[in-house]
Order: sequence, then structure tokens, then C-alpha cells
Amino acid sequence: MSLDTQKIRKDFQILNQIVNDEPLVYLDNAATTQKPKQVLDAVCNYYEHDNANVHRGVHTLAERATADYEASRDKLRAFINAKSRKEILFTRGTTTGLNWVAKFAEQILQPDEEIVISIMAHHSNIIPWQQAAEKTGAVLKFVYLKNGELDMADLRAKITDKTKFVSITHVSNVLGTINPVKEIGQIAHAHGAIMVVDGAQSAPHMMIDVQELDCDFFALSGHKMAAPTGIGVLYGKEELLNRMNPIEFGGEMIDFVYEQSATWKELPWKFEAGTPNIAGAIGLGAAVDYLTEIGLDNIRQHEMALIDYVMPKLCEIDGLTIYGPKNNTKRGGVISFNLANLHPHDVATALDMEGVAVRAGHHCAQPLINYLDVPATARASFYIYNTFEECDKIIEAIKATKAFFGV
Amino acid sequence: MSLDTQKIRKDFQILNQIVNDEPLVYLDNAATTQKPKQVLDAVCNYYEHDNANVHRGVHTLAERATADYEASRDKLRAFINAKSRKEILFTRGTTTGLNWVAKFAEQILQPDEEIVISIMAHHSNIIPWQQAAEKTGAVLKFVYLKNGELDMADLRAKITDKTKFVSITHVSNVLGTINPVKEIGQIAHAHGAIMVVDGAQSAPHMMIDVQELDCDFFALSGHKMAAPTGIGVLYGKEELLNRMNPIEFGGEMIDFVYEQSATWKELPWKFEAGTPNIAGAIGLGAAVDYLTEIGLDNIRQHEMALIDYVMPKLCEIDGLTIYGPKNNTKRGGVISFNLANLHPHDVATALDMEGVAVRAGHHCAQPLINYLDVPATARASFYIYNTFEECDKIIEAIKATKAFFGV
Repeated sequence: MSLDTQKIRKDFQILNQIVNDEPLVYLDNAATTQKPKQVLDAVCNYYEHDNANVHRGVHTLAERATADYEASRDKLRAFINAKSRKEILFTRGTTTGLNWVAKFAEQILQPDEEIVISIMAHHSNIIPWQQAAEKTGAVLKFVYLKNGELDMADLRAKITDKTKFVSITHVSNVLGTINPVKEIGQIAHAHGAIMVVDGAQSAPHMMIDVQELDCDFFALSGHKMAAPTGIGVLYGKEELLNRMNPIEFGGEMIDFVYEQSATWKELPWKFEAGTPNIAGAIGLGAAVDYLTEIGLDNIRQHEMALIDYVMPKLCEIDGLTIYGPKNNTKRGGVISFNLANLHPHDVATALDMEGVAVRAGHHCAQPLINYLDVPATARASFYIYNTFEECDKIIEAIKATKAFFGV
Repeated sequence: MSLDTQKIRKDFQILNQIVNDEPLVYLDNAATTQKPKQVLDAVCNYYEHDNANVHRGVHTLAERATADYEASRDKLRAFINAKSRKEILFTRGTTTGLNWVAKFAEQILQPDEEIVISIMAHHSNIIPWQQAAEKTGAVLKFVYLKNGELDMADLRAKITDKTKFVSITHVSNVLGTINPVKEIGQIAHAHGAIMVVDGAQSAPHMMIDVQELDCDFFALSGHKMAAPTGIGVLYGKEELLNRMNPIEFGGEMIDFVYEQSATWKELPWKFEAGTPNIAGAIGLGAAVDYLTEIGLDNIRQHEMALIDYVMPKLCEIDGLTIYGPKNNTKRGGVISFNLANLHPHDVATALDMEGVAVRAGHHCAQPLINYLDVPATARASFYIYNTFEECDKIIEAIKATKAFFGV
């Protein structure tokens, strides 16, 4: 079923605006997506009727707020098909989730044990592992690429019985590549390693089933899937979360506190110290409702159709280089490119003059950018509200940019 | 100047509701405060017009979002009179802020060095220090009380040249006690110790000047001062923040990332890994504008007047025990009490039946509750929108509760 983008766009007031005398074409969805009215209404409704602190109160508002907050956890459990609500930890976002997993690695890694990540990782899936390696004496290994995809031979060679953690991005935020994380998880598990998936760029765009993927951890960000900023989820298998020490300490996560020691609550609250981002969690629940009603498979089909439409037109532009796989089934809706010898910042600035919002830079993936041997890329990324007309618009805008700079 | 509470209450739609057939009397402000229309409008306006990821983009929305987010940092700097915007770190809340400072303690503490905290600390100002002590071999010492206030003789005896950190709550969330943190900071500094202030219960209610207090760190929560959930600020002196290692690692906080190492951005971004709670920060900026327009001194005066009015009436109730100082100048707008031999949960439930929302429990301060030798307390806490009529209402409701239970 194709999406009714005109109907969807009515939910996103922000899209209906003029930027630099042109209608806004928002193609920076890999950085953050826009939020529908339904999500803003859920947040405001919470603040206007139910706002109170959660878990601690017996009064009416506190009970309502707690019920709303915990209902969102249930929605998130269903959204990624976790086995138990105990496995759904609210975080600030994917960065926090991956940092927590790397802290768990610091807890259990022994010197000379190995961590395997990939050269297409986002900084949030690199630096926490560098820190874990440095603190424990473990070794951090990178898997490299072949034709814009993970080199699976390299991956099979690097994952050994010394490997304790494998952490791979589900969809590259630069190349758009969809990585076979289920298959990689099987390889990791065959060697006794823990499989971590950075789901920041996949959860918003395709059906996720953590039980089917059989990953051990899966991190996502709300703000990249139509939800407010400052909220995300870390999924972890219950058995691992039980072994994992809390990361933050304070109220809410304790059972008993004595002067010199304390004991922890059961899952999931063991990991949720202090007042959580209650309204953020409620907004994320509303976003999950919104995306579920559209249908994650429909979202994936829509983005594939957009890529199918725009990719050949991009490929026709003389001097335009596209990074990552061209084949639709192997990529999500992120397209990184460079135009002749122009700096991508100049390209993005020129596109902005045409109302087209794209990103330019290293996309928090400097090792990949170095590996690609480019200074940076421009990046267009699509979501549920983007249209075929907007695909035409970016093609026109790139051609105008080309003409303007005479390249 | 007394506050125009009727005008203020119009900004808080949530207060205009019936709970259990009675008008809501919200007296759980120490747990979380309500949010005015101006804050919700700021958040929605951001999402409806400017939402984009910050710092990374050259397109128009990204520039607007970045300007909005960084403008909020400037507002927070002014709000607490920090010397530099580099000293304002956005966090998830006070719990996160105090955890970060304790991580810094783990970085620099040596075995047998000492940490001094107080028995009236919130769990978020206890457990992180327990962890720091356990990991470094440092010793955690508690200052006890005298007449519901910190025993300053005990404090002077416990702070020695071995003390490296002193961390004290500015206003107790159980007793309401205002602690002389400036004086304590002078004692700490005289011994070369770092002074940390838990400002969760002070920043919303009184003028804060971190330069005048001369504290080294000061943590606050947005949600306790009319701002959204999931945002707070950690203030730290620039020289200390420069020595402090980042806590989370990922995008935004880096300068260069290589395969095996990385370098950090300058302050304040060194501490802000990943996409921040952009809308939360903007909402906090709007809350600061709102509170500043009312005037923090006026807020303090209003709360003092409420306490002046309600305290004698509470003291008249036979069988009612109040914890903490009775003297207005030594306390904020938090009143913990117990009624005869009733369990505070029963008291809070009975008050809720009269529309009065108070908290009951250990208030995330179990060591203090043990020290007071009670199972728990009920707690009423006031804010800008509370009225003298509401003071009458809680008095009536307590009397009705007393009659109902026949105590």
C-alpha cells in the first residue's frame, strides 16, 4: 500500500513553510524527523491534565502519570517485539543506550578479549568502545567494506572466540546500507559474543523484531522516529540486564539505601535513576502509535519507492558521486553524495537557498569518511512525509547548484 | 511584592480540574511542578516551526534550532549568574548532574581521601558517592542534624584536609531546611575540598548566584521549576570542567575521531554527546523567562508567606508532628509531617479523596527517614500558584482525615 503523503503532511505543520522564498523540502530526516500533531497533542495533553512525578505518589495525578508512562513502555515493547517489558529501558537516546552497553562491557571484559565494530559505525558506536578497550585492556577491531557494504569475509575473519562484543549499525547513517544484523548475530553467538545493534536509523523505517533478530541489545532514538527529543530506548535481553550494573544512581532505581550501601530495584527500574523524561516517553508512545497505524512495512515500501524514483535521476547528473549501495533492497532512505569538486557544505548551502534541507559534513562518522577518502559528503534522507515532487525538487536544485558553480 | 496567584493560575490549565469531586489542590511541587502555557507554547512553537538537529547543519531550520538551543544556555547562565556559558551543561536532571560530579570524583580521588555529605541528602546525592568511595577506596562520611538543621559543629569536625569533596543539598526535600551552602563552601575550600550543591529544591524557589555562593558545582532539574521533564543543568567552574573527563561519548562532543582514539570539543559541548533534549532545553529557557518575570525574590516571599500562614494552623492540630525547622527564614516551602499513628500513605490517600495532592513515603531519602526514626512522612510542598485558600483546604482535609480515622 502506498502512503497517503498528502494526508500525512497535514499532521506536520512545520512542513508547510517557506524557506528562502521556496517551499521547505525537509530531507534531513537521518539527523532528526519532524513530529506529528498527534505526538505534540499527547505531550501537551499530559502536561495539561496528568502531570506529576511517577512511581512515588499515591495521589490521583501521580497514579495517572505513572500509568501513562508505563503504558508507553508497553507500547515500545510491542513495537520491537521484546519478550518482556523488563527489557525496555528508557534512555536519552541511542547515544546513551550504546554508552550503557559499553559500560557493561567495561564491567565484564578481560584484557586481550576483543570487541568487533565496523568502519561504518557512528561515533556513538565507536568512542564508547574505545573507552571500554582502553579501560579493560581489550582490543577494538574494525570490519571494513566491499562495494559500500560490510565485507562479510572480513567480518567472519575478525569474529573469533576471543570476541566478546560485536556492535553493528543496522542501517548506516551515511551510506544507507542495511546490514545483515541477524546473520552477524548468529556468527557472533557461534563464538559466544554479545550482539549489539545500533538501531537509530532502522527502527524509524522498518519493522523491528528483536526476538527474530535475536540480538542481545538494540538501541533506538525517539527523535529520529517522530517522537520528542531527549528520549530513547535501550532493549537488552533480561538475563544480560540482570547481570549488568546500573549506570546512574539515585531515586527510583533503589530498593534500600543505607549510609554506606544500597540495593537495586528489579528491572526495568534498576536502570532509571531520578525523574525520567516522562513527557518524552509518553510522546514516544504516541509516535509508536502513529507509525504503527501507518504501518512499518508501508513506510519501508514508501521509502523504497522514493529511492527507486530519485536514484536513477541522481545517477544521471554528471559529476555527482553517490556512496553506498544503489540496490534498493540493500539500502534505506539515506543518500550521501558529492557534486564534482564542490565542498559539501557549499552544496548544502546552495540547496538551502532552494528550500531543500540536507546535511553536509562527516555525519558523526569520521572514520568512515576517512575510509571513503573524501572530506565530507552531502546527505539527503527521506521519511514518511516526503513526496515524489520533493524528489524532483532536489534534482532540480542540484542541477541549479551545478549551473551556479559552473561545475 | 505579593504574587498575583489568580493571574498565575490562568497559565496552568492543569490546576483547573476536579479530583475526586473536589477542586485539585496540588501540593506535590517538590516532586515536580506544573508547567505554564508559556513553556508548552515554547516547546510546541519549536516543533511547529524550527525543529532540526543542532550544531551539525547548515540549512535554515538547523541554524534556527541551534540558535534557539544555545540561547537557552545563555538564559540559564544568567539565571544562576555563572561567569561563562561554558559552565552550563545540559543534563537530564539533577540526578544525572550529581552522577557526573561523582564520576569526576572517581577520576581524581585517592584511597583514604574523604567525601563529606549529609544525612539529609537525597539518594541521588548519596549513592553516586557510595560508588565513588567503593571504586577509589575513599571514605564516605555523613554530617548529622541538630534540631532539624545540619549540625555545623559536626560538619566542621568532619571536613578536614583529607576531605576532597563536600556535597550538600541546598534545601532539604524532606525537612525544607535551607542549608548555609556558602558558609559550608568556605569551610570546604579552606581545606582544599571541592564544594558541590544539590540545587534541585532551591533553584526553583529562590535567587541563585553561583559566583556569590562560590560553589564548584551546582545541579538543578528543569521539571521542578516549571520546565519540561528530561532536562536539567549542571554548573561547574570552568577550570574543573576542563579537568573533568567526558561522561558520555558519541557525536557532537568530539573534535577528531580516529579508529583507536578521539579528541574532545571545547566546553560546554565536550559533555553533550549525541542529540540533546533540544525541545527540553528550549522549554527550560522559557521557564526561566517565566520565573524571572515573576521574580525569584517574589517567589521566595510568596512561599514564606504561605508557610507563615499554614505553619501555625498545622501546629495547632493535635497529634500532628512536623519535621524540620519551624522558622521561616531557615526553611523553604516543603513541609513533612505525620498524623498520630497513621501511616503517611493512608494520610496521603485520604487527602487525595479531598482533592489535595501530597506525597507520602521516604522521599528518596531513606537514611534521613531512618535517622528520624519514622517509617515515612507525608509531605506538602508549595509553589507560585498555591494560595492561602489552598492552605485552608489542606488544614480542613487533615482535620477531616483525623476525624475519619478517629485519631
